[in-house]
Amino acid sequence: MSKRDLILSTALELFNQKGTAEVSTNHIAEACSISPGNLYYHFRNKAAIIQALFEQLYAAWDTELSLPNDHTPQLSDLTNLVETNYQIIWRYRFVYRELVALLRQDLALHASFLSTRQRGFSGFQQLVEQFIAAGIMRPIEAKTLDQLMQICWLISEFWLNNLEIQQQSIEPSTINSGVSLMLRVLQPYII
Amino acid sequence: MSKRDLILSTALELFNQKGTAEVSTNHIAEACSISPGNLYYHFRNKAAIIQALFEQLYAAWDTELSLPNDHTPQLSDLTNLVETNYQIIWRYRFVYRELVALLRQDLALHASFLSTRQRGFSGFQQLVEQFIAAGIMRPIEAKTLDQLMQICWLISEFWLNNLEIQQQSIEPSTINSGVSLMLRVLQPYII
Repeated sequence: MSKRDLILSTALELFNQKGTAEVSTNHIAEACSISPGNLYYHFRNKAAIIQALFEQLYAAWDTELSLPNDHTPQLSDLTNLVETNYQIIWRYRFVYRELVALLRQDLALHASFLSTRQRGFSGFQQLVEQFIAAGIMRPIEAKTLDQLMQICWLISEFWLNNLEIQQQSIEPSTINSGVSLMLRVLQPYII
Repeated sequence: MSKRDLILSTALELFNQKGTAEVSTNHIAEACSISPGNLYYHFRNKAAIIQALFEQLYAAWDTELSLPNDHTPQLSDLTNLVETNYQIIWRYRFVYRELVALLRQDLALHASFLSTRQRGFSGFQQLVEQFIAAGIMRPIEAKTLDQLMQICWLISEFWLNNLEIQQQSIEPSTINSGVSLMLRVLQPYII
């Protein structure tokens, strides 16, 4: 693993454990067994590390949440997509916990997050439209379809916060209960 | 208005404008045109003011989100309930913006929030069960019903954060679009 990748994976683990406020660049350097100077050679400050982790998240969205091109979409493609989405959320859970605050602190980060999020939302819309075309879901009026997808998106983005508020342990099994909620929203429209 | 109420309504306005982190007890006293000492006579610190505002929120939930007792429930009761809920969320919007962080900071607050929230969720469950009994909604399997209500609750609790992430202006009209999402979730089950 390159030093840069070591710094990023260590920072991710610490941010997920303790939150970004409690973790300094010195903590990260110490956990990597490198000097603070060596860390600063790769990242000028904590915000730059957070930005690089957001970019990893965007890359995960773009590669892992891509549409199936090689066959007519099946309903299992949707389930897989939602499960993959929650695996990504789990991997970058500090981002989802602290989303409003992190985006408020960094306007450039907010802009890149919004544009990547919009690309993801369009991909999700295309998948659902492919389901309708393939007869897996019944035709849905445009406004209703947009609302259904907004609801699914909201569940996806805030499920982790909801678990924390309810003081439920946050682990893959509780996160998967969010998958069931999204499928519940779509179920009345599935043929 | 009593001095105590003046402090609370001023703090609420400042917290809603700037967030709790940016507002000190001195700022609140100054905006009330009272001395810090006078403020401390009523509240020992900022956490005590936040706690008192949470108690106002609980009281609003209990009185304004009560079930109609004097007639068979109508679907308009649900719409009214959801709209009233969003008015409360709008009035105490700093709570919903900062929910995870505020509850993490104060274990007693977390406990009182969870128990009041559970009471509200039970009331919501009873209303929906009354709709089913009155033939407004079709019978729904217990697990499905619980999931639908969890989804509505999630929309209610995080709609404001979602608007902020999308950099949409937060005003009564955009908040009301959350009402439409909750009704969209229930619509397939309405007769």
